Amino acid sequence: MATAANSVPHPTIVSIDPFVLATEQKGLHNRWHPDIPAYATVKPGQVFKLQCIDWTGAQIGNNDSSDDIKDVDLTKIHNLSGPIAVEGAEPGDCLVVDILDVTPFEKMPWGYTGIFELENGGGLFAREFQSRAAKAIWDFHGVYASSRHIPGVRFAGVSHPGLIGTAPSAELLATWTKRETELVDQHPGAVPAKALLPIEKGAYVGQDLPEDLRAKIYKEGARTIPGREHGGNCDIKNLSKGSRCYFPVYIKGANLSVGDLHFSQGDGEMTFCGAIEMAGIITLQTSIIRGGVEKFALKQPIFLPSPVDPLYSAKLVFEGISVDLHGDGKQYDMDATVAYKQAALNCITYLMKLGYTREQAYLLLSAAPVESHVGAIVDSPNACVTLALPLGIFENDILPREEGLVKRDFGQCAIRSDGVL
Amino acid sequence: MATAANSVPHPTIVSIDPFVLATEQKGLHNRWHPDIPAYATVKPGQVFKLQCIDWTGAQIGNNDSSDDIKDVDLTKIHNLSGPIAVEGAEPGDCLVVDILDVTPFEKMPWGYTGIFELENGGGLFAREFQSRAAKAIWDFHGVYASSRHIPGVRFAGVSHPGLIGTAPSAELLATWTKRETELVDQHPGAVPAKALLPIEKGAYVGQDLPEDLRAKIYKEGARTIPGREHGGNCDIKNLSKGSRCYFPVYIKGANLSVGDLHFSQGDGEMTFCGAIEMAGIITLQTSIIRGGVEKFALKQPIFLPSPVDPLYSAKLVFEGISVDLHGDGKQYDMDATVAYKQAALNCITYLMKLGYTREQAYLLLSAAPVESHVGAIVDSPNACVTLALPLGIFENDILPREEGLVKRDFGQCAIRSDGVL
Amino acid sequence: MATAANSVPHPTIVSIDPFVLATEQKGLHNRWHPDIPAYATVKPGQVFKLQCIDWTGAQIGNNDSSDDIKDVDLTKIHNLSGPIAVEGAEPGDCLVVDILDVTPFEKMPWGYTGIFELENGGGLFAREFQSRAAKAIWDFHGVYASSRHIPGVRFAGVSHPGLIGTAPSAELLATWTKRETELVDQHPGAVPAKALLPIEKGAYVGQDLPEDLRAKIYKEGARTIPGREHGGNCDIKNLSKGSRCYFPVYIKGANLSVGDLHFSQGDGEMTFCGAIEMAGIITLQTSIIRGGVEKFALKQPIFLPSPVDPLYSAKLVFEGISVDLHGDGKQYDMDATVAYKQAALNCITYLMKLGYTREQAYLLLSAAPVESHVGAIVDSPNACVTLALPLGIFENDILPREEGLVKRDFGQCAIRSDGVL
Amino acid sequence: MATAANSVPHPTIVSIDPFVLATEQKGLHNRWHPDIPAYATVKPGQVFKLQCIDWTGAQIGNNDSSDDIKDVDLTKIHNLSGPIAVEGAEPGDCLVVDILDVTPFEKMPWGYTGIFELENGGGLFAREFQSRAAKAIWDFHGVYASSRHIPGVRFAGVSHPGLIGTAPSAELLATWTKRETELVDQHPGAVPAKALLPIEKGAYVGQDLPEDLRAKIYKEGARTIPGREHGGNCDIKNLSKGSRCYFPVYIKGANLSVGDLHFSQGDGEMTFCGAIEMAGIITLQTSIIRGGVEKFALKQPIFLPSPVDPLYSAKLVFEGISVDLHGDGKQYDMDATVAYKQAALNCITYLMKLGYTREQAYLLLSAAPVESHVGAIVDSPNACVTLALPLGIFENDILPREEGLVKRDFGQCAIRSDGVL
Ligand SMILES: [Zn+2]
Ligand SMILES: [Zn+2]
Ligand SMILES: [Zn+2]
Ligand SMILES: [Zn+2]
Ligand SMILES: [Zn+2]
Ligand SMILES: [Zn+2]
Ligand SMILES: [Zn+2]
Ligand SMILES: [Zn+2]
Repeated sequence: MATAANSVPHPTIVSIDPFVLATEQKGLHNRWHPDIPAYATVKPGQVFKLQCIDWTGAQIGNNDSSDDIKDVDLTKIHNLSGPIAVEGAEPGDCLVVDILDVTPFEKMPWGYTGIFELENGGGLFAREFQSRAAKAIWDFHGVYASSRHIPGVRFAGVSHPGLIGTAPSAELLATWTKRETELVDQHPGAVPAKALLPIEKGAYVGQDLPEDLRAKIYKEGARTIPGREHGGNCDIKNLSKGSRCYFPVYIKGANLSVGDLHFSQGDGEMTFCGAIEMAGIITLQTSIIRGGVEKFALKQPIFLPSPVDPLYSAKLVFEGISVDLHGDGKQYDMDATVAYKQAALNCITYLMKLGYTREQAYLLLSAAPVESHVGAIVDSPNACVTLALPLGIFENDILPREEGLVKRDFGQCAIRSDGVL
Repeated sequence: MATAANSVPHPTIVSIDPFVLATEQKGLHNRWHPDIPAYATVKPGQVFKLQCIDWTGAQIGNNDSSDDIKDVDLTKIHNLSGPIAVEGAEPGDCLVVDILDVTPFEKMPWGYTGIFELENGGGLFAREFQSRAAKAIWDFHGVYASSRHIPGVRFAGVSHPGLIGTAPSAELLATWTKRETELVDQHPGAVPAKALLPIEKGAYVGQDLPEDLRAKIYKEGARTIPGREHGGNCDIKNLSKGSRCYFPVYIKGANLSVGDLHFSQGDGEMTFCGAIEMAGIITLQTSIIRGGVEKFALKQPIFLPSPVDPLYSAKLVFEGISVDLHGDGKQYDMDATVAYKQAALNCITYLMKLGYTREQAYLLLSAAPVESHVGAIVDSPNACVTLALPLGIFENDILPREEGLVKRDFGQCAIRSDGVL
Repeated sequence: MATAANSVPHPTIVSIDPFVLATEQKGLHNRWHPDIPAYATVKPGQVFKLQCIDWTGAQIGNNDSSDDIKDVDLTKIHNLSGPIAVEGAEPGDCLVVDILDVTPFEKMPWGYTGIFELENGGGLFAREFQSRAAKAIWDFHGVYASSRHIPGVRFAGVSHPGLIGTAPSAELLATWTKRETELVDQHPGAVPAKALLPIEKGAYVGQDLPEDLRAKIYKEGARTIPGREHGGNCDIKNLSKGSRCYFPVYIKGANLSVGDLHFSQGDGEMTFCGAIEMAGIITLQTSIIRGGVEKFALKQPIFLPSPVDPLYSAKLVFEGISVDLHGDGKQYDMDATVAYKQAALNCITYLMKLGYTREQAYLLLSAAPVESHVGAIVDSPNACVTLALPLGIFENDILPREEGLVKRDFGQCAIRSDGVL
Repeated sequence: MATAANSVPHPTIVSIDPFVLATEQKGLHNRWHPDIPAYATVKPGQVFKLQCIDWTGAQIGNNDSSDDIKDVDLTKIHNLSGPIAVEGAEPGDCLVVDILDVTPFEKMPWGYTGIFELENGGGLFAREFQSRAAKAIWDFHGVYASSRHIPGVRFAGVSHPGLIGTAPSAELLATWTKRETELVDQHPGAVPAKALLPIEKGAYVGQDLPEDLRAKIYKEGARTIPGREHGGNCDIKNLSKGSRCYFPVYIKGANLSVGDLHFSQGDGEMTFCGAIEMAGIITLQTSIIRGGVEKFALKQPIFLPSPVDPLYSAKLVFEGISVDLHGDGKQYDMDATVAYKQAALNCITYLMKLGYTREQAYLLLSAAPVESHVGAIVDSPNACVTLALPLGIFENDILPREEGLVKRDFGQCAIRSDGVL
């Protein structure tokens, strides 16, 4: 018969408490550095679990005010679980990582999407909207999320780690710092800064370390905001549970770290804190392909997406070109970022016709499984990008019909306690 | 019983010969201008067909040399079928267009994809590759395309009009000219030019016109390369047969024009002449939504994609960030275009490991149903874009496996008769 | 440039006129017999087209009366195009057939679905409904079909040959006749007959033949209604354009025949003449796998379905078990046919709540891309079968909602001129 | 910040221990009867969890012998969690049930598929194969299952409750007993019996009950093997997590019961214990539609399938007709069950060419997400049913190729300790 003896659960390699600040917990770190020791070592083939704190390290609460979003300390964010060394991995190998599952904690069935202010994090439209802090809390009901702050929608999650990557070598780290410093130097005084450079303030490695090593890591460690050659904070929604990813290995053991779990996200992750951010548990399995970097010409990770991503086949698609049609009408030169923004603004305007506030629409497109395709990127001077809104996530019919759109009252998302919007 | 009498075929409103140069044919035009008279008028609800010449106007042949690509006269391209007026359409209305079918001519079961040289058209990697003219001829076998110039692949077409749009008003036309002129002025001497401004040379309207009107149109008419507010050359692969598109109407009758039919295309249309370009027949049906521009906040077209696009669920995905990893390593600032290029280069390099030449890989990614998603566009300074290669289009297994990739000999695509590559 | 000289259309091997009765045309036949000579021979790899008359051989008209359905001569049906010999095919080989395209004639953009009376053909519910002849004419608008006889729906076609197969050997033919005769003998006087046995009346081979050969074929030739080991009238909607099928070869040349083209069909093809029947053109390509019957253990065809079948992901699913809940409540023993019928009846009843007549609902489920799955077939005594109605084919929302279903007036389908229903 | 106080987990209404025999636990029952009291009551809208024991009630172990399968006591099976009353539900209402999630216990990451012997349970091919007990243990790795007993495959689960339904009224229960008794009476001495009638032996209700009530329930309670009007053991794989089901309500409170959780299952559930059977947790939410039985003409449940079912678009499809081609060649009359069996046997034979044993193939088709469609059910005398094998679940290419199939050694599944097969 079935017994506990013949039922072996998958081991948890990193355990955290999602209700305790990251900086008080073991097995977390928030910088990239080759000298951060492996927190644990796994064998190829072994299935294991890592518990992950949410990307802010528990700074955000399940409530109806966005003050916590306004006050997030961004020097402390992206507390990753790991590093996890894989036995036998060597530089030049390819580390194959099966992302077997990504789930919230049973005791914490909620997540959030936030709009950050221009001065603290920003977001795609921080300048255009002069965004003030706002947020939506999402309740998790099994495979679905819905929000009291954005009524009228419910969708299945395409759950994934926003951030997963191998540790950089010293050379790679130096390259990152050099090129990002150059960018910052080209834009003195930019708000927000064009890149966040290494800074000791807020740095954290939840391990016992010699002080000089700790100081070195804190001083040199790369910040975690951008995705880079090793993966990192790529925020690719389709690198979801069920996918298999191939990472370059830069140091002995590979030293994989992961965090920033998302219950769901739209292509683009518009608001910056745009996914449904959550604390949770990721289940992984690894293997090593000797010399895989050369075998597969890996300059960056490649992956096989999951067979279980949500399928919403009916969509309404918005086009965008690289002309600032929602702003001053300026013509840009084959700029896919501008084109993406126009498609998004076209969609936001449409959602506002349905009764959503601008903030609700902005949050919704960040969090729901919208798809954004690069349409064409060669028809000078206009790149064309599309954004596809899945119809099946709405309770009501939102199609463009003869009689126009029905405007409903959906209230407002969570805003600042001082009422400033 | 079934009789010819009770079987009424859908009428063909524009008839062309795909083997005759565009400039010798009626019902075609290659500039956008509000004063081009409607070539024909249809009633809302009527199903009708337009025959379309290929985008070069028959300049390209089914042969094994790319000399014709090298010598394309780009002042004469994008010969559109129309304009077709829709009875009752007024400025501010929304013109609903059902793209019911897009097929090649039965007598011309082939198309082509071309790489243009930097000095004549260019393409996404024209500078990086210092591209010389090259091409692939694709044979159409029912729903599939395959090419003697790119062996080892076969795929179902996601057939669509690369170019479809309503006529601009005089005001809109003036706006286009102004903004594009400003861009050109900011980049004097750029090769290729940042935008193609109105030019009389090569202009064509295949109708009897008063000479002064013809002169006005030729002088002022907008060039057709970029997509704009009215649709135009958006080259969106999913605006395919079976989709329904909602266009803003700018002038009485709407004056719809369409051309540049594609048997297939990948997201991005990389090589510029990157789709499988074909002559063919498009079947349309229209309706009008009074005041639709206001009702749906239409600054650009929106559409419902088709239920019959090819479904290749298994994919290999390549990531790209806005760092020029394949070039000088420069850090760009949240530039999705750079990120797209990196993802594409990662994929091209992978395909070369399989034995394809760089030119074959470049052509294949342009023509096959690859999907490119904007992953994240908020993680400063790195935009992240993905490019997904459908595994089902390959005859052989191309997965990254322990033993590495099998390199096969696929020959080469069509190149210049002087052998320059 | 593009020229007629470098554009070679795929050859048409069988040409027919869809407006002329089958029995006046060449290249058609309506019996299975090994001695029917090949009408033409193709080489492996060659792409070719066969024109096909509709399954009744032009007996049905595009009008608003079902009298023609009532009077169909079923001894003359299933006039197939062929046989086509494939050079080199030998018994025991596997004939690989790529179904590259299936389209209606441009000059005949319509098809029909019919309900046959119990005494002439019958249908799944012929007895339960005491069906009188009825029909729906479907208009083809590119990839879509819609019907003036069943308003409120429009769907993309999953176009396929209802009937395709290789010629039987003499032994196989004898087996068929023997086993079907035994079945008929077990049910003397059944209406409709349990199987249609060989009969000279109505037999047809549109070739010049020696009289004794013709007589032999007419006397012995198997009727075409059921699918059998060689394929035949399987009416599998997913054996659609874009699919690849592997047939057993029984005689030298394989002698492939095809007909009974369907623009669309639901799983089950409920009304018997349940697909959208059409005349049209099929494009094929073949290859031979030597000894494939043994290599793949082929007792019947196997196939790879198409990547371009319509994708309607949102569905409403009806369950059925092997108890006659819509009739006398009888308990059947693990009978999937009964279970399928119950699921279908549950769906028909639901559609009637929306305002469709029973005949319209019956025709719609036969013709639209509904999916029927065998749920479970082991839970004695109840087989469970499901039938899934795609929501995207309806103009209006048909979901079960709090407020109940909205009943609309959809008129009625075409019925008999004497008004009998 | 995130706190336990603002994080409210969904309540667990039925708690069980998967390692303790069902008959020692509360909140379980294994008969259908209107008088079984509700074990708990929920409000409409409330999200709640039910823990479920596996269908045998912990009789099967994670080991390499099938002796436990051989010895299962079938009088004790299908121990359901519940009944759960829903506040306000009345006969004639429709109970809407959202199946929000279905997961295994974290401490029991495995399940099993079993072949039962003819004398104890049987299965689709119990007679044809003269099956001896066999089983496969499946390990759960996040969204995937794989088995040491069936190497070479891995697939994502389409997880669902095999059994879910509302309680019957006394009248409905009487109807069931009457019709099933009649069937048994028509087949005296059948092995296995045509239906399992009420029997006191093995009956169980895990609640404190008055003895006379318990006796009544045990004596009259319907067995749980077949699905019926109320749902029950329908074993529909697509009634999976993320689906919404509409049940008829027969008694006050509706009294919903659920169990027999499946990690995955193929259409048909061939071996009888054919799914990947597991203990686990189901998350539900309900609502009530007043008078829904009449509103939606509900004779049986209807449902909206989930957007997160696994998508394996590439398939190899096997056909089957109602002729016993794998047996004595007998012609059946439009029998979809026979047709399903032939398709399944064709597929099993194919899998054996790849090296799987008959038992492995039989188990695999039962457990993997194979799709079985009713092709056509009107072409007398042959029903046609297809079975589609997803290619993406295999580690290696299994396509029919020129060179034939590669036969590998996959060992054998778990068999009886006496070695009898
Ligand atoms: Zn992130
Ligand atoms: Zn995040
Ligand atoms: Zn174009
Ligand atoms: Zn083009
Ligand atoms: Zn048929
Ligand atoms: Zn037919
Ligand atoms: Zn079950
Ligand atoms: Zn079960």
